[in-house]
Amino acid sequence: MNTSAIQQNFERIRSNKAFELFVVTVIIASALLVGVKTYELSAASQALLGWMDTLITTIFLTEISIRFIAEPNKRAFFKNGWNVFDTLVVLISLVPVNHSDLVLVARLVRVFRVLRMISIVPELRILLTSLLKALPQLGYVMLLMFIIFYIYAAIGATLFESINPVLWGDISISMLTLFRVMTFEDWTDVMYETMSVYRLSWIYYLTFIFLTAFAFLNMVIGIVVNVMHEETEKAQQDPAQDESTPTLADIQQQLNRLEQMVVSNQQEDRAGK
Amino acid sequence: MNTSAIQQNFERIRSNKAFELFVVTVIIASALLVGVKTYELSAASQALLGWMDTLITTIFLTEISIRFIAEPNKRAFFKNGWNVFDTLVVLISLVPVNHSDLVLVARLVRVFRVLRMISIVPELRILLTSLLKALPQLGYVMLLMFIIFYIYAAIGATLFESINPVLWGDISISMLTLFRVMTFEDWTDVMYETMSVYRLSWIYYLTFIFLTAFAFLNMVIGIVVNVMHEETEKAQQDPAQDESTPTLADIQQQLNRLEQMVVSNQQEDRAGK
Amino acid sequence: MNTSAIQQNFERIRSNKAFELFVVTVIIASALLVGVKTYELSAASQALLGWMDTLITTIFLTEISIRFIAEPNKRAFFKNGWNVFDTLVVLISLVPVNHSDLVLVARLVRVFRVLRMISIVPELRILLTSLLKALPQLGYVMLLMFIIFYIYAAIGATLFESINPVLWGDISISMLTLFRVMTFEDWTDVMYETMSVYRLSWIYYLTFIFLTAFAFLNMVIGIVVNVMHEETEKAQQDPAQDESTPTLADIQQQLNRLEQMVVSNQQEDRAGK
Amino acid sequence: MNTSAIQQNFERIRSNKAFELFVVTVIIASALLVGVKTYELSAASQALLGWMDTLITTIFLTEISIRFIAEPNKRAFFKNGWNVFDTLVVLISLVPVNHSDLVLVARLVRVFRVLRMISIVPELRILLTSLLKALPQLGYVMLLMFIIFYIYAAIGATLFESINPVLWGDISISMLTLFRVMTFEDWTDVMYETMSVYRLSWIYYLTFIFLTAFAFLNMVIGIVVNVMHEETEKAQQDPAQDESTPTLADIQQQLNRLEQMVVSNQQEDRAGK
Repeated sequence: MNTSAIQQNFERIRSNKAFELFVVTVIIASALLVGVKTYELSAASQALLGWMDTLITTIFLTEISIRFIAEPNKRAFFKNGWNVFDTLVVLISLVPVNHSDLVLVARLVRVFRVLRMISIVPELRILLTSLLKALPQLGYVMLLMFIIFYIYAAIGATLFESINPVLWGDISISMLTLFRVMTFEDWTDVMYETMSVYRLSWIYYLTFIFLTAFAFLNMVIGIVVNVMHEETEKAQQDPAQDESTPTLADIQQQLNRLEQMVVSNQQEDRAGK
Repeated sequence: MNTSAIQQNFERIRSNKAFELFVVTVIIASALLVGVKTYELSAASQALLGWMDTLITTIFLTEISIRFIAEPNKRAFFKNGWNVFDTLVVLISLVPVNHSDLVLVARLVRVFRVLRMISIVPELRILLTSLLKALPQLGYVMLLMFIIFYIYAAIGATLFESINPVLWGDISISMLTLFRVMTFEDWTDVMYETMSVYRLSWIYYLTFIFLTAFAFLNMVIGIVVNVMHEETEKAQQDPAQDESTPTLADIQQQLNRLEQMVVSNQQEDRAGK
Repeated sequence: MNTSAIQQNFERIRSNKAFELFVVTVIIASALLVGVKTYELSAASQALLGWMDTLITTIFLTEISIRFIAEPNKRAFFKNGWNVFDTLVVLISLVPVNHSDLVLVARLVRVFRVLRMISIVPELRILLTSLLKALPQLGYVMLLMFIIFYIYAAIGATLFESINPVLWGDISISMLTLFRVMTFEDWTDVMYETMSVYRLSWIYYLTFIFLTAFAFLNMVIGIVVNVMHEETEKAQQDPAQDESTPTLADIQQQLNRLEQMVVSNQQEDRAGK
Repeated sequence: MNTSAIQQNFERIRSNKAFELFVVTVIIASALLVGVKTYELSAASQALLGWMDTLITTIFLTEISIRFIAEPNKRAFFKNGWNVFDTLVVLISLVPVNHSDLVLVARLVRVFRVLRMISIVPELRILLTSLLKALPQLGYVMLLMFIIFYIYAAIGATLFESINPVLWGDISISMLTLFRVMTFEDWTDVMYETMSVYRLSWIYYLTFIFLTAFAFLNMVIGIVVNVMHEETEKAQQDPAQDESTPTLADIQQQLNRLEQMVVSNQQEDRAGK
């Protein structure tokens, strides 16, 4: 049996409906396992979970191997980001953990197995891709917002540090405090505290809230308009590609033809006289 | 008097305007009764309310019976979800309550009688149907959001359980805490607590807030675009159904006819020479 | 000098730019007066303010009288809601206040003079009218939301009254508590309190938040779609009224004329042979 | 070497890619410097930062001089708002600071150097311009909101001053309290306090929240509709400027020409007979 035959056999397994369903079931089981482990458990249950964890890791390893062998072009396999992600998550779970400190890390790696749910459901993958595609559009608004945050945080850290070093100690903690103000989370407590020293510091908070709210609003409207624009363009391109409904250009072409005919008709008439 | 005659008589009662108005009045009275019962009442008032409750139950029972007898096709009656709901709410109120624990349950069942307001006002029924129709569109965004919640809750329950078991005890309580963070409800208290142990845990909260806010925003925009899309399609179909305003296809058809005529004209001319 | 001549003289005063500017200045002064009165003042300042208040009342009285006399049709004057409002606000300020309890009421009435700002600036009047016009569209969503609030408040008052009578004492106070939950204002404090008795009461709060948020979202989208719809209709009616750009119907008419000519041409040709 | 030759030499430096990149680097370095200064630093680091600050000021001064000399029309230089802003920020940093009170002011002025980031990146400049352009549209809604705030603050300062002078002392502090209520920040604490004296004061808060939320919603929808309107107009103007796709007016013109030909043809025919 040659390599190509093995590859085709494995490809048949990979495309099998039952195989796909089985993998989804195991992924859901692994997700549930992650959840169950956060509860207080008896020693027996913990032993059972450890055994199930090993089983799931084995199944995942087998599955990835099948996918890899089934792939005709081995290089293309690692060009797909999701395949790399799947392989990494499975391989890291294989690293033996003895030291107690690393137990925590090992448990956290297992949490990321839940993300395999996204890699296996095509609709979720499309949704995530479209979400990520919307991000770069926001680039400059994000930069503008960061500059607003940075300037206000620098002013805050300069003026209010002596009032409350926990909130305004340095520029990074000030930015966190400003994010808190932006979410309206007990922002008046922060304001009343600084107002007891600087009577007019409410101007600082109100201008900050207005600036960020306005920039945020603009960002949202920007996305909405963008999405609408794409929708409209799609709607306008559709009838052009659809040959059954005529466009204005079709009508004009037909009129040109008709005009030509009438002209030649007239010339024949004149010549015939 | 045969069955069909009785049915027709009852149908006449059901379609009567006065009957409908009377039922709406009784439903509003039953809703008010539910409200009044939450106040501290004298024994005399309570007796009066009990008597009114019995009266309303009797009226509802009579009304449902009239509707049922008035229905020509008895099976179709129970195929309508609202009829089933109305019947259930009325029947459950009939169960005699002696035990004191069940008094609470009996009072809660009476609360659902207020929902009969929706079943009786057609505009509310349409509104509710359109609200429910919008839900499945959100299916995958909801699933994605649940996965985000699940992963963050698993990480939270793993890392922060020792810090505050009330907030991060297990994965379900962690999800509730994360929902609280998403609503910005005292979320900084939760954050400052974990930051005292893990200095960098603000990354956990900020990435969570950005991810959920972004997914939520996307969900809202998705609904808006969907609604707009439907509106535009309706608007585009309207002129097509309206025969008085011509479409481009009509114009093309007419041009084809004209071209045909000019061609046949030319051929006749040539033949005539 | 007859009545009509007087009326025309007053109409000239009313239309005078200087008169309008003067009235706006007095309204702004009266608004500032209302603000200044909320500060701690010396007896001398209070006497001065009292004197200015009398002056403003006199000016307002004179102004309304001029408007009334200037109006050719006296009945039309009181059909305009803003005129009635202006007259009422001015007349109520005339009622002499001796009793100390009424001083507060008198001050509150003067606050409403600020609303004259809206009645005098046409742009604000248009804005307010368009805001009020949007309200009835929301009627049924508002009713649905009220029913949701009523049912949840009835359940809350039944189940949680014994836990915290201050928040859940009766149905009206429960509705206020639910409004608080909807604004996410310390809602987890309310929830944790009831969860200590009913472990599963988080379902009550989460379903309530989802239902109201969803209904609210729907309301907002409804308004947006409505506004867009009106905009689109306006945009579609514009080109129809503009005679310079042809419509498809114009093109069709012209084609009909052309077809008629070609047909008659053909018949003449045949007849001529 | 004459003045014009110098100017052209400097213009060449200004347009140099390397020069632009160097300036951007220095601006980012100056922004980082502002941030670093908010941390606790050793005396050595502070000396280093002071030295870097002098260096950056010198570079900025040189840069502005190059830009000014490179400008052919010296008056046009100061007509550009960004140039004026850049010059002012650099010149103010030159003022020697000896007195300890002014050290704080000097540090704050240096914070505004971060804004040079906006003046140097064209995309951010465009974004800011478009944000500022959207503001005047909001003028009347802002005025209406201010009137709502003013009236409610006047009522609040009149009725609630005796309950809590810290929150309702005068009209300006009352407006701050109402802004807090609008952001839902511990608004129930404010309400419960006044409700203990005036049982019905919840009406005051709820009407205020509804009015401002409704006005705010209207404002947002106004902006969205405005942006959409501009988009649609742009989309409708595009095909008119594009000569390859015909408009209905083109079609009509062609039909007119065709009609003319058929008519003249007919007349020739008749004349020929």
